[in-house]
Amino acid sequence: MSSGGAHETERDGSDGRTGSRPRGHVRLRPGDRVAVIAPSGPVDPDRLAAGCEVLRGLGLDVALGKHVRDRVNLNEDRAVRDGWYRLAGTDADRAADLTDAWCDPSVRAVLCARGGYGATRLLDHLDWTALAAATGPEPKILHGSSDITALHVAFGARLGITTSFGPMSASQIVAAPAPHEDGAEALAGLRAALFGSGTIEVPGTSVVRAGHAEGPLTGGTLSLLTALLGTPHAPPPAAGKIVFLEDVTEEPYRLDRMLTQLLQSGWLEGAAGIALGSFHDCGDPDEALAVLTARLAPLGVPVLAGLPAGHGPRQLTLELGAPAVLDTGARHLLGGTG
Amino acid sequence: MSSGGAHETERDGSDGRTGSRPRGHVRLRPGDRVAVIAPSGPVDPDRLAAGCEVLRGLGLDVALGKHVRDRVNLNEDRAVRDGWYRLAGTDADRAADLTDAWCDPSVRAVLCARGGYGATRLLDHLDWTALAAATGPEPKILHGSSDITALHVAFGARLGITTSFGPMSASQIVAAPAPHEDGAEALAGLRAALFGSGTIEVPGTSVVRAGHAEGPLTGGTLSLLTALLGTPHAPPPAAGKIVFLEDVTEEPYRLDRMLTQLLQSGWLEGAAGIALGSFHDCGDPDEALAVLTARLAPLGVPVLAGLPAGHGPRQLTLELGAPAVLDTGARHLLGGTG
Repeated sequence: MSSGGAHETERDGSDGRTGSRPRGHVRLRPGDRVAVIAPSGPVDPDRLAAGCEVLRGLGLDVALGKHVRDRVNLNEDRAVRDGWYRLAGTDADRAADLTDAWCDPSVRAVLCARGGYGATRLLDHLDWTALAAATGPEPKILHGSSDITALHVAFGARLGITTSFGPMSASQIVAAPAPHEDGAEALAGLRAALFGSGTIEVPGTSVVRAGHAEGPLTGGTLSLLTALLGTPHAPPPAAGKIVFLEDVTEEPYRLDRMLTQLLQSGWLEGAAGIALGSFHDCGDPDEALAVLTARLAPLGVPVLAGLPAGHGPRQLTLELGAPAVLDTGARHLLGGTG
Repeated sequence: MSSGGAHETERDGSDGRTGSRPRGHVRLRPGDRVAVIAPSGPVDPDRLAAGCEVLRGLGLDVALGKHVRDRVNLNEDRAVRDGWYRLAGTDADRAADLTDAWCDPSVRAVLCARGGYGATRLLDHLDWTALAAATGPEPKILHGSSDITALHVAFGARLGITTSFGPMSASQIVAAPAPHEDGAEALAGLRAALFGSGTIEVPGTSVVRAGHAEGPLTGGTLSLLTALLGTPHAPPPAAGKIVFLEDVTEEPYRLDRMLTQLLQSGWLEGAAGIALGSFHDCGDPDEALAVLTARLAPLGVPVLAGLPAGHGPRQLTLELGAPAVLDTGARHLLGGTG
C-alpha cells in the first residue's frame, strides 16, 4: 500500500510512548485493503459473509484472517460438545492473525469481526516488539468493541495510537440488523470513523452532573477494564481524560462492584469527565442509571449518560485516545478526529 | 467475657503482621456470646430469626447488630422501588455494626447472617487501627462466605488471623434447608469449626492433578478475589499456600476470564496446591471443570476438585489462614485447626 496522502498526516508530535498524546490513526480511502479477524469468540459463517459484503459496499478490499473461521473451546480443544465453542481458534492462532494483519504493509485497517470472549487471553501471546515495529508514523486502524476493549487498552498504551471503538462487521447491527436496531446509523458512523477526518457528535440523553470537559477519550466496556486491573495489562490512569463506559448483561450490583473496583484502584482519579454509553440488558435501566450516578457523580466532574454507543440498538463509533469534548449543556460528546 | 481457657491458647508465635503465620481464632464454648451482623445484602426477617434459633440451639447467646435488619438501595437510599434493596444498610452503618461487634469484649464470634453484595464497599469504611487494637492474642471468630470473602481477605491480611469460611446463619442451608440440601452436615460442619479444635476432613471428588501439598489455606469466592485485584485491598500473594476457590452463577467464560486475571496478576505464582469447591449454577458442570482444569493444571501443583464447600447443596466450613494439607491420593483437604 501507499504510505498515505495528505489527509493521513500525523496529527501531533507524539513519539507514541505512553503518556504522550496518541497518534491519530490513518483514514481509509476507497480501495484500501482491510483485514477481518476474530480475536475473541467464534464467528457465525453467514454473519461473517454478510459483514464482509457490507465492508465491500464501503469500497474496501476485504482480506480474511487465516483463523477467522476457527472454533475451539476454552481448553483450546477442537473436539468438544456442541455449545462449548467459545473462541475463534487457539490463543496462539488468534494472536497470529492479529499480528499478521497488523504487520502486513498492504493492510490499512484491522477490523474485528465480533467480540464475545477471549481478548484478555490474547494479551500474553502478542509480540509487542513486532507490533511496535510495524506501527509507522501513520498507524493503521484497529476497530472493534466489547471484548476488544482489552486490545484497545493494550494498543493504546503500548503503541501510543488512537483506536476505533464501534460496531463490528459480523455483529448483528452491521451484518443483519434487527427491526429495533438502527443499522443505517451504525454503518454511517462506522464509515465516518474509518474514512472521515472530521468531528463526530455523539448525543447524550441524561445529564448526571453538569459541566464542560476536554481531554483524550479513554475507556470502553466496563467489565473488560476491570478484568485488566492488577495485571501487567491494566489501563493507564484516566487522569485528565474523558472516560467512556458501557456494558451489557451486567446486573446493577455487578456494575456497582466493578465501579467500586475501578474507584478503589485509583484509575478514575483526576478523570476530566465521564461519558456513559448503553448499559443494555443490565437489569432495570433506572436502577442501572442510579448506580452509575451514585458511584460517579461524587467524582465532581461532568457526567453525561445515554450516549448511543456500546451494545444497544444504536451504536455510533468512537475514537479512543483522540481529543474529545464533553459538554452537558449541549448534551454531547465531540470526538473522532484523532 | 472471660479472656479464655486452655483450649484457646495462641497457636504460634505470630505477631499478627502480614507474612507471619496467622494466629488461630478462639474456639467457642456453650454460653458464649456471638454477634450476628449483615455486612452485605439485606436479610429476610424470617430467615434471620430462624438462623438465630439455630445458633441458640448450639448453646450460643445471640446478639444482633443494630443495623442487621436495615435495607437500602445501592444509592444508600431507603425510599426506593421494590426490588432495589441490595444492601443491609448504608456502608457506614454496616461498617459500624462490624466494628462494634469486633470491638465488643463480650462478643467471641462475629457471624455474618448472609452474603449477597456489598462487602467490597465496606472495606473503605473500616477503622483498621480500632479493629487491630481489639484483636487480642486470642482473636475472635469472623465467620461467613461468598461476598464475605472480601472481609476474609482483609481481616486475614491486616489482622494476621485465621477466619471461618462456611454457611451463614440466615442462609437457606442453615435456616431453612431445602430437601436437596444437606442441612445437617452443614450445621455439623459449622459446629465443628466454631467449637472444635481438631482437624476437619473435606473430601474431594475429582483429581485434576495428582500430588500432596501443605500450606496455609487461602482464597474464597473467585469473583470476590478478582474484584479486589488492583486495589489496596488485593489479597496477599498465594505463594506457598493452598488456594481454595468456589463460585456461583458465573458462566464458564466468566470463570475463565477471572482465572486469566488471577494468573496474569501473578497472584497464583508459587501456590502450593488448589482446592476447588462447588461451582454451583455455573453453566454445564463438565464445561466449568474443563475450564478450571485448563487454567489451573498448568500451574504444576496438586489440584483437587469437588470439595463440598461453597454455594452448593453441601457446605462444609473451612478455616482460612490455618495450616492445611491437600492430598489427592486420599482425595481430601485436611484443615481447620488454626
